[in-house]
Amino acid sequence: MLNKYIQEGDNADLTKERKNATFDTEIMATEIRGSAERLRRDRSIRDEISKRSDLFQVIPPAHRTRIERLEDCSRLISNMMNTIHDFADVTDKYDMIQVLRVIIGVEGFPLALHNLMFIPTIQNQADDEQTEWWLWNAIQGKMVGTYAQTELGHGTNLGAIETTSTFDRETDEFVLHTPTTTALKWWPGGLGTSCTHVILVANLIIDNKNYGPHPFLVPIRDPKTYDPLPRIRVGDIGTKLGVNNVDNGYLGLDHYRIPRRFMLMKHSKVSREGVYSAPVHPKVAYTTMLYVRSEMITHQANYLMIAMNIAIRYSAVRRQGEIKPGTQEVQILDYQTQQYRLFPGLARCFVFTTAASTVRSLTEGCLESLAQGNSDILADLHNLSCGLKAVVTQQASESIDQARQACGGHGYSDASYLPTLFACAVGACTYEGENIVLLLQLAKYLMKVIVKPKEQLGPLTSYLADENTASRIQADSKYVKLIAHFEHIARRRIRNAYDLMKTDYSNGIDKDYAFYNHSVDMTKAARAHTKLFIATGFVKRCQQVTEPAVRQVYDDLLDLYLSYELVEMSQDLLFDGYLSTHDVSSIRNLFYDSMKRIRVNAVSIVDSFDFSDGELRSVLGRRDGHVYENLIKWAEMSPLNRKGLPHVEKYLKPVTSKL
Amino acid sequence: MLNKYIQEGDNADLTKERKNATFDTEIMATEIRGSAERLRRDRSIRDEISKRSDLFQVIPPAHRTRIERLEDCSRLISNMMNTIHDFADVTDKYDMIQVLRVIIGVEGFPLALHNLMFIPTIQNQADDEQTEWWLWNAIQGKMVGTYAQTELGHGTNLGAIETTSTFDRETDEFVLHTPTTTALKWWPGGLGTSCTHVILVANLIIDNKNYGPHPFLVPIRDPKTYDPLPRIRVGDIGTKLGVNNVDNGYLGLDHYRIPRRFMLMKHSKVSREGVYSAPVHPKVAYTTMLYVRSEMITHQANYLMIAMNIAIRYSAVRRQGEIKPGTQEVQILDYQTQQYRLFPGLARCFVFTTAASTVRSLTEGCLESLAQGNSDILADLHNLSCGLKAVVTQQASESIDQARQACGGHGYSDASYLPTLFACAVGACTYEGENIVLLLQLAKYLMKVIVKPKEQLGPLTSYLADENTASRIQADSKYVKLIAHFEHIARRRIRNAYDLMKTDYSNGIDKDYAFYNHSVDMTKAARAHTKLFIATGFVKRCQQVTEPAVRQVYDDLLDLYLSYELVEMSQDLLFDGYLSTHDVSSIRNLFYDSMKRIRVNAVSIVDSFDFSDGELRSVLGRRDGHVYENLIKWAEMSPLNRKGLPHVEKYLKPVTSKL
Repeated sequence: MLNKYIQEGDNADLTKERKNATFDTEIMATEIRGSAERLRRDRSIRDEISKRSDLFQVIPPAHRTRIERLEDCSRLISNMMNTIHDFADVTDKYDMIQVLRVIIGVEGFPLALHNLMFIPTIQNQADDEQTEWWLWNAIQGKMVGTYAQTELGHGTNLGAIETTSTFDRETDEFVLHTPTTTALKWWPGGLGTSCTHVILVANLIIDNKNYGPHPFLVPIRDPKTYDPLPRIRVGDIGTKLGVNNVDNGYLGLDHYRIPRRFMLMKHSKVSREGVYSAPVHPKVAYTTMLYVRSEMITHQANYLMIAMNIAIRYSAVRRQGEIKPGTQEVQILDYQTQQYRLFPGLARCFVFTTAASTVRSLTEGCLESLAQGNSDILADLHNLSCGLKAVVTQQASESIDQARQACGGHGYSDASYLPTLFACAVGACTYEGENIVLLLQLAKYLMKVIVKPKEQLGPLTSYLADENTASRIQADSKYVKLIAHFEHIARRRIRNAYDLMKTDYSNGIDKDYAFYNHSVDMTKAARAHTKLFIATGFVKRCQQVTEPAVRQVYDDLLDLYLSYELVEMSQDLLFDGYLSTHDVSSIRNLFYDSMKRIRVNAVSIVDSFDFSDGELRSVLGRRDGHVYENLIKWAEMSPLNRKGLPHVEKYLKPVTSKL
Repeated sequence: MLNKYIQEGDNADLTKERKNATFDTEIMATEIRGSAERLRRDRSIRDEISKRSDLFQVIPPAHRTRIERLEDCSRLISNMMNTIHDFADVTDKYDMIQVLRVIIGVEGFPLALHNLMFIPTIQNQADDEQTEWWLWNAIQGKMVGTYAQTELGHGTNLGAIETTSTFDRETDEFVLHTPTTTALKWWPGGLGTSCTHVILVANLIIDNKNYGPHPFLVPIRDPKTYDPLPRIRVGDIGTKLGVNNVDNGYLGLDHYRIPRRFMLMKHSKVSREGVYSAPVHPKVAYTTMLYVRSEMITHQANYLMIAMNIAIRYSAVRRQGEIKPGTQEVQILDYQTQQYRLFPGLARCFVFTTAASTVRSLTEGCLESLAQGNSDILADLHNLSCGLKAVVTQQASESIDQARQACGGHGYSDASYLPTLFACAVGACTYEGENIVLLLQLAKYLMKVIVKPKEQLGPLTSYLADENTASRIQADSKYVKLIAHFEHIARRRIRNAYDLMKTDYSNGIDKDYAFYNHSVDMTKAARAHTKLFIATGFVKRCQQVTEPAVRQVYDDLLDLYLSYELVEMSQDLLFDGYLSTHDVSSIRNLFYDSMKRIRVNAVSIVDSFDFSDGELRSVLGRRDGHVYENLIKWAEMSPLNRKGLPHVEKYLKPVTSKL
């Protein structure tokens, strides 16, 4: 059997699906994880964890209060720290992704930012002496920290933050201060209840001169009592749409003093005399952002893969409605409308995984080039990463909500895990740069480069100087045409936006206003540019797949992805008669045709993601397909299924007992 | 001042916005509520409730556990029942909408279905004797009930439910049975913990003949102890994406016996001898569904109005980013991209309110006609209502999520109330008929009528026999053309879908399969048909507004709504050269132009919804605009801001205290 996930006793419909697989799921799983070694390690980590009963979540978080969730997450992380070296390499990013996926899930935990931001910031921005003071304490958890930048009144526009750090030459200290209500730090994960320290981003002031935002290490709670230190106001900001395992917090400082040397001084420095020295390589910040964004895309792809796994398996198990009255109810996966909801999201799992690794390798190449003094691609790549973050987070969260709705009522239940996945994914549309702001940043860049001659353009924008060709891509001729359509759309939208802006400008409107007057068109231009990059990357990725049966599936997904995106933008293809109605129909037909091809393999494709039931955390997505009996078991754990609930005792019984 | 919501001490930006109003908010509020009397009553109800401290939610539900929420809701409802007759007419639907909006909010309460479904079903489906037995006990709350139809394995396809009610002639009883796991009743609100009785929908079986689903009144819990009765299995199904104030539940019955007379016998009956008599008026069920759907549209419009009120006020208060570097940060409402996110949703508030009342009055007209033996419109209207439910729930929840995202990070916090509104609105895409299933039902109807000659078509479908005209609408000539575009799109999509189906059929494919082979195109056809109805209705509505300044605002919203929808469907306008690229650009320009006109009045428009801060339940939406200081107050109520949290005591302190 080509599908290796079949077991005896499984739901019959799932087994039937799996028997139809046209490819070997082991080869596909290897292709998806990137290497046989990665697949082996991920499986080994999962197996080792499953042997340790103290790393197991007994009660689903949905059935617990927030305080209980924080306790349970902390228990798991604490137990994990005792044995992790037996089964994973804590310095291997992919090991850690797998460990957390198995033990915690997607909702985070109080110390998430300690590991993701606090420790790395010390590593990257503290000087050697500071590193010696802090790093080992942080790694051991004696200092628990987070990263505090966003303020109550200030988010994506870092330039506007109000918190100040004023150098006091007399005492050799910084005086930290949040001067207004809107200056309170707001949102840092773990700040609510868990942190003893923060990396605080504040405007550095020396002799009344503002040197802009810089990082400072700040003790905020007594590590013995967890009481806030004097002049510190700190607490939890309450519940959110999702990620409620994390205690996001607020922080106010009232002329709070720290030693001068608590400013992180690897790059910028302030001397005992109050002399400021600026960092040598200002562009280093860009490459950090590039890494963060490729990480975000990896996470979004992960959320989406889990969601598609759940929804596609459930759609094979669920039978609802008759196509021909009087016959058996059909698997809902057989409805074209269901495929239309799910398969573009399935393709995006592969497409976004590819986009993340493309950005990662471009970033690595860019760093090498920078070292040799060549920064050709840096501007292109940094600006493109803004668009990528925006397009991927938006499309992933849309696809997850479609997957959720495609599961009907049960998708609305937390037993499906889909509401949790949606909340996590859609949050990323806002944090680390709000999507619209990022698209406008990319658009501003595109408005600058569109007027340049080809020889001055970077490798990711040079197509803008071309006419309708897709010469840059080494593709099968089959895809040259489709990619040319993406190029046409991007070029047309960018040129159009430029013309609109230019017309305003010619009419005497200030150039900044001329840009913002057309900001909707600007975001559309930025999206089209980004989609071209994503599509091109996936065409190349498919060409690297060597095993014919797996390659065929990749090509089916490629057909579906390209045709879906083009149909969605078909007005752009019709404008000015670039394509005819008939041409657009052909693309539509390719789309419907590829949906049919994917239908056969849909379950086996998501099987090949190789997630265990423990990783999926979804009653609907179980490998064995035994959905309904397990929905009951899940429901029975609800804390409302106890005797003596107060609303019944106080308000209902006194009346009903009179019946 | 034309805007009557200005008060001293308000946020200065909000006051500035309000001073710019071009219309009188009292006249607008009257227009929106439908009458001066309705506005007066709603305000009086709100004022009376605000005087009663026992009807006040002290702690926001977001800060409470589910068990505490159920208790608090039940306390409020219990207190309300003691005094409601002093300030509201419980038989007036609009009074009750206002009472619940003020006291409870949108998340429901354990007894919601008792009032919405249990009591009305007794009223509509019990015979006189049964009504005497049950109704008064139900109204007094001695019996607490819900409506149990959906099963674990069976939702929208009512025909497939498995629960049986078998007549036992010997004992004059029905034997109720859920024969399989998938037959468990699943989802009824209040069933989880609160109900003593349910209306159970089960297949009526007499002498091995299945007469299909019928309603039965079934005691399930002992009203003195709340223990499940013997042979009853009942409990809560756990948490969901939203509506967690409601204890949705499950129910299994194991050969459970009820007296024959517990079948609701107003319409269908079973005699002592086991003789079944069918209802006289089978079409009555349609009109009930019509009412339920117009109610749903009213609720969606309400959710959306609250969301837009919150997001637009906050967008006037929030300043973020500079258009011209070095100048003051701008109100985010000034960004075209922000307007693009919010204003289509703002227009939809008016459009959906209109759609709800149009369906309501068409239904009333239809009932009158039916009484006179004329059922011309019934089929058109019933099928259209499927499309309306689908389009409105989808667009409302999309607009609410856009409103949420437009509020940035603070929109992700439960302090905004926007996550709650989204969860409530998007749930309606699934319940009361899953949207895709409903669109396909409408499409099936359209496939039947498209081949008929004009004289056989009902009033809502007769346009299908026309060519490109919009003769049905009594509109200013300005709108005739735009509505003609909606007609063109609907007609083209319906004809296209029909041709696709017909081609398959001609090729020997079974007609049911031929339909489902093109179900994506079918849903698109159904959506276009529905949008035409919605757009036409709003054109007519605007013409009824007499006060010129308010009329101008309605016309601005109309321009925006029509142009937005047409731009979204612009590929349909370009196909086969129906419109040129230039024509589509003109519609786009109308859209951008109307956004500018609405910008001036946006805050004053949402003010005119006349919601109090108590009704909005949102820190971001406050009338006074004092957002930031109140976000802090809201956060401070989080239960995590207590000493001695277990995760800190058990897992963090033991390590950090070693620092």
